[in-house]
Amino acid sequence: MTKQSLPRALVFDVFGTCVDWRGSIIREGRALNRTRGWTIDWEGLVDAWRGAYQPNMHKVRTGALPWTNLDALHMMALKGLLSKFLNGTPRKALAGDDLGHINTMWHRLKAWPDVPNGLKRIKARHVIGTMSNGNVALLTNMAKFAGLPWDLVFSAEWVHHYKPDRECYLSAPRMLGLKSADVMLVAAHKSDLDGARKAGLKTCFVPRPMEYGKAVLAAGKYDAAFERRFDYNAKDFGDLAEQLGS
Amino acid sequence: MTKQSLPRALVFDVFGTCVDWRGSIIREGRALNRTRGWTIDWEGLVDAWRGAYQPNMHKVRTGALPWTNLDALHMMALKGLLSKFLNGTPRKALAGDDLGHINTMWHRLKAWPDVPNGLKRIKARHVIGTMSNGNVALLTNMAKFAGLPWDLVFSAEWVHHYKPDRECYLSAPRMLGLKSADVMLVAAHKSDLDGARKAGLKTCFVPRPMEYGKAVLAAGKYDAAFERRFDYNAKDFGDLAEQLGS
Repeated sequence: MTKQSLPRALVFDVFGTCVDWRGSIIREGRALNRTRGWTIDWEGLVDAWRGAYQPNMHKVRTGALPWTNLDALHMMALKGLLSKFLNGTPRKALAGDDLGHINTMWHRLKAWPDVPNGLKRIKARHVIGTMSNGNVALLTNMAKFAGLPWDLVFSAEWVHHYKPDRECYLSAPRMLGLKSADVMLVAAHKSDLDGARKAGLKTCFVPRPMEYGKAVLAAGKYDAAFERRFDYNAKDFGDLAEQLGS
Repeated sequence: MTKQSLPRALVFDVFGTCVDWRGSIIREGRALNRTRGWTIDWEGLVDAWRGAYQPNMHKVRTGALPWTNLDALHMMALKGLLSKFLNGTPRKALAGDDLGHINTMWHRLKAWPDVPNGLKRIKARHVIGTMSNGNVALLTNMAKFAGLPWDLVFSAEWVHHYKPDRECYLSAPRMLGLKSADVMLVAAHKSDLDGARKAGLKTCFVPRPMEYGKAVLAAGKYDAAFERRFDYNAKDFGDLAEQLGS
C-alpha cells in the first residue's frame, strides 16, 4: 500500500459501494407484494434487472443507442423483464403509475450501515462526491433518502459518458480544478478502480461481500481480496476515515 | 403573491444572495495588507473587479471568447486591474503565487448571517442547490468555507452557458427530472429572477441591501422593493423557510 500524499477530494461509486441495491429492492418489492396482493419474484427480477445494466450501457458507449440516462435504461429493462417474474400476478394488477414507482426503487436504496457516519467523518476534511453512472435526479433523491451528505454530485449524465469511460472519471478533477492524482475513487468493484487508475486518479477498494447476496458469496464468486495496486484498501468507510486521519 | 404549489427544489444565486462578496474580499484584503505590508485599495479593487464581471461574461455569451470559467475570467480581470489599485505598493512586492491566492478570495466568501441556518431548514424538506455563474471548484470550496449545505452544485460551467441564458436555468429542472415550475430560483437580483421566470421556473426575491456597500445603499441605488411578479418575496432565508413551512 503506497500512500504518498492524501487525496484532496474523494469520489464514490454508489451502487454496491455505498448502498445495498439488491437487498433494498427485494425488501421494498416484498412489502409491495403484501400491500398489493402481488406475487412478483423480486429476487429473480432484481438480479435480471441489474444484469441488463452493463449490456444497456454498452449500447450507449458504442453509439448503438443515443445518450440515455440510467432512469430510462432501467425503465427499458424493466418493461422487457417484468413479465418473466410476475409469478402468477396478472399483468393488469399493475396500474398506470406502478411501473414508474417500481423504477424509482433505484432512488430509494439504503446505505450500508457504515456509510453515513463514515462519509460525515471524511467530509470534515475532504471534498466528497458521487462518481456514478446513476443520473443526477436518482443520485440526488437517493442522497436525501439514504442520508449521504455529498458536497456535490458527479454523474455520467453530466458528461454523457458511462464509466469506465475515461471522460467520466476525469470530470471530477477537471471540475474541481485539481490534478487527477489529488482525487481518489472509492469503489467495491476492481474493474471500476482500474478504470480510474488508468485515468490517473488515486484508488481505494472497499469490499462489499453481500452486494450480490448470500448465494453468490457462498459460491465464492465475490472477490474481496485487498490489492497492492490500489492506493488504499479499507474494510469499510469507518476504516477509510481512520486511514485518512479523519 | 401567488403561491400555488410548493416548489420541489430550490436553487440559489450565490454571489450577493448567499454570500457577501464585497465585504469578504475587503476584509481578507485588508488583513493581507497588514501581514504583507501592502497598501492596496481593496475597496476600489473589488468594485472594479466585480464591474468587469458582466462585460467579460458577455464576451463568452456572444462567442467573442470561447468558454472560459469564472476563475479564469476573474484572473483576466485581476491582471488588468491590479496596477490601478496598488496605491503605492510596488508591483514586485507581490510574489509568484500571490495573484492566485488573491483570485481565490472568491472561493472564501462569508455567508450572510441568516443563510446557513435558513438553508439547513429548507433542506430538510426540499432539494437545495446552487444556480450560479461561479465555476464548480469555486462553488464547492465556498460551500465548505461558508457552511452552505448544498445537495448539489448547478453551475454555468456544467452547461457552458452563463445566466441569464435560458440553458443555464433549465439545467436544474432537466437534471432533477422535474418540471420547470417545480424548481424555484432564489436571488437578490431582479434581472436574474426575470431570466428564470422566462424559462418557466418559480422565483423568490430576497433583498440584500448591503451587497454593494453602505454608499450605494445611502445613494438609494439599491432596489429592495418586493414585487408581485415573483412567486415569493422574503426578507431573508429564515423568512423564506417560514413561508415554505420548513
